[in-house]
Amino acid sequence: MGEFDLIARYFTRPVRRSPLGVGDDCALLQPGPGMQLAVSTDMLVEGRHFLSTVDPRALGHKALAVNLSDLAACGARPLAFTLALALPQVDEAWLEGFSEGLFALADAHACELVGGDTTRGPLAINITVFGEVPAGQALLRSGARPGDDLWVSGTLGDARLALEAFRGTVSLPQAAFEAARARLERPTPRVALGLALRGVASAAIDVSDGLLGDLGHVLRRSKVGATLEAGCAPRLLDALRHGLALPPERIEDLVFAGGDDYELAFTAPPGRRAAVEAAAAATGTPVLRIGRVDAEPGLRLHDAQQRPLTRRFAGFDHFGA
Amino acid sequence: MGEFDLIARYFTRPVRRSPLGVGDDCALLQPGPGMQLAVSTDMLVEGRHFLSTVDPRALGHKALAVNLSDLAACGARPLAFTLALALPQVDEAWLEGFSEGLFALADAHACELVGGDTTRGPLAINITVFGEVPAGQALLRSGARPGDDLWVSGTLGDARLALEAFRGTVSLPQAAFEAARARLERPTPRVALGLALRGVASAAIDVSDGLLGDLGHVLRRSKVGATLEAGCAPRLLDALRHGLALPPERIEDLVFAGGDDYELAFTAPPGRRAAVEAAAAATGTPVLRIGRVDAEPGLRLHDAQQRPLTRRFAGFDHFGA
Repeated sequence: MGEFDLIARYFTRPVRRSPLGVGDDCALLQPGPGMQLAVSTDMLVEGRHFLSTVDPRALGHKALAVNLSDLAACGARPLAFTLALALPQVDEAWLEGFSEGLFALADAHACELVGGDTTRGPLAINITVFGEVPAGQALLRSGARPGDDLWVSGTLGDARLALEAFRGTVSLPQAAFEAARARLERPTPRVALGLALRGVASAAIDVSDGLLGDLGHVLRRSKVGATLEAGCAPRLLDALRHGLALPPERIEDLVFAGGDDYELAFTAPPGRRAAVEAAAAATGTPVLRIGRVDAEPGLRLHDAQQRPLTRRFAGFDHFGA
Repeated sequence: MGEFDLIARYFTRPVRRSPLGVGDDCALLQPGPGMQLAVSTDMLVEGRHFLSTVDPRALGHKALAVNLSDLAACGARPLAFTLALALPQVDEAWLEGFSEGLFALADAHACELVGGDTTRGPLAINITVFGEVPAGQALLRSGARPGDDLWVSGTLGDARLALEAFRGTVSLPQAAFEAARARLERPTPRVALGLALRGVASAAIDVSDGLLGDLGHVLRRSKVGATLEAGCAPRLLDALRHGLALPPERIEDLVFAGGDDYELAFTAPPGRRAAVEAAAAATGTPVLRIGRVDAEPGLRLHDAQQRPLTRRFAGFDHFGA
């Protein structure tokens, strides 16, 4: 199958909202009046972001999910995406699975494929996603203020736990493994929550590299610090509800520095607690208050007795150790 | 150097027109009132789209040029781009050269980097580019009508000639080699011409896979055919002006099926010939009339005596032979 047949068979579908989709030199997008276009791009490389054995359906889901998660963190409504795909060979079973997983998530968010590129090469997937947000209403990393509460959605650490299980560094009960694996392979972008937090949250980021590292971006951009209650860790690791037992430090490592979570970490003034809870309830998304923003720069962890934890957590860096 | 240092050092510059650039979960773009956003994405993979020995400056130029060429083919004005980069290692000399070549072309077109992603992996470069075009004025592939003239900008075949010289299948005089190599490594996106052809051309495409193959897309989308004068080939191969001698069939192969040209092929009614010439003169871009659009489907080549040429040309396909 040639490049053009491949595109026609697996990646060409009529567009509904965009003025022009796949098949011309460019796609055309038309954000609504007064809207800004939010744009994010993520590249997934085999061996780095996913295992070669991963189900292509899950990979199609995840490649789009990590991008939708960035829109969620900005409070932008998904509109469209482009897909660039380097493939070592044309494997129709793989393409069918990949496109099925991709379009299932795309359809769930009314996010349409408008263009792309395919080429032969080591397996790599690059999606660029477009959303719209009313001008001036995007959630930014720079809006956190001293006194704000620190919140996180859903659960943290389970994706990393599944990765460690695949690597053989931890052995999991079956139920905990299945739940953790689903979190690794089929993350849920918190799009509805992100939209509901517009006008409520003061800053937001999606947790992709680990909570501490990602919070660090918010704090630096906002020129503030924060204190985090380490005691929240066991409440955030879902696997503990599926029969797993782990030492407290291991739980903290997973929750605070695991990565690949695609939850939202966000700040909001204490006066907006009811509004945060309402946004969470309206979108069916669990949220947990995990600390507060301080004027003093840096990120501090406290134990249940308000004593500072001084141990180090390794952040995730694609070029790090 | 970690991922974030790398981005900060080589790929973070203040944005001027976009509301938000590199450093948040999303970038924000704000197309002008009444404007549509034109979007295109191209992935370049080592060994497939460029040689491992290529000057990183040239590669930075080309990675953006091939995307700007798609905007040109739509008559869209460049606004911004995102860059996703998979790198086998952090090579500062390479990054410095690459970013220099990239930003030199970006600055020349006032096209600003607003976001991206970097990861470790086999060398791959994916740029997604954004331009704006007044709603309804984009040049499409679907607008060619029987009776229209067929035009092409600049020169064709020289990029492929350079590739053949690198492969050792042809030996070139020094001047011809240097000129051809510049066409391969530093193509000129015809952005100004694309803008000037709005309201003049009836259809357009950029020539990336070879003239015949790319014209085929225009003809199919427009539901028309075309007749091309094969006699134009020697006028389009620039190397012939630099002391190269080649058999006529070889010249035709290069010009009609070479690929990697990033010129514009476009159609316009015969009544707009003066307007086409004026657009070409105003933008300093040579154009040549090379045939005409017919009602009969298919693409025919005629020799100087109006006899049909029946030989086959191999098109370029990233998954083809």
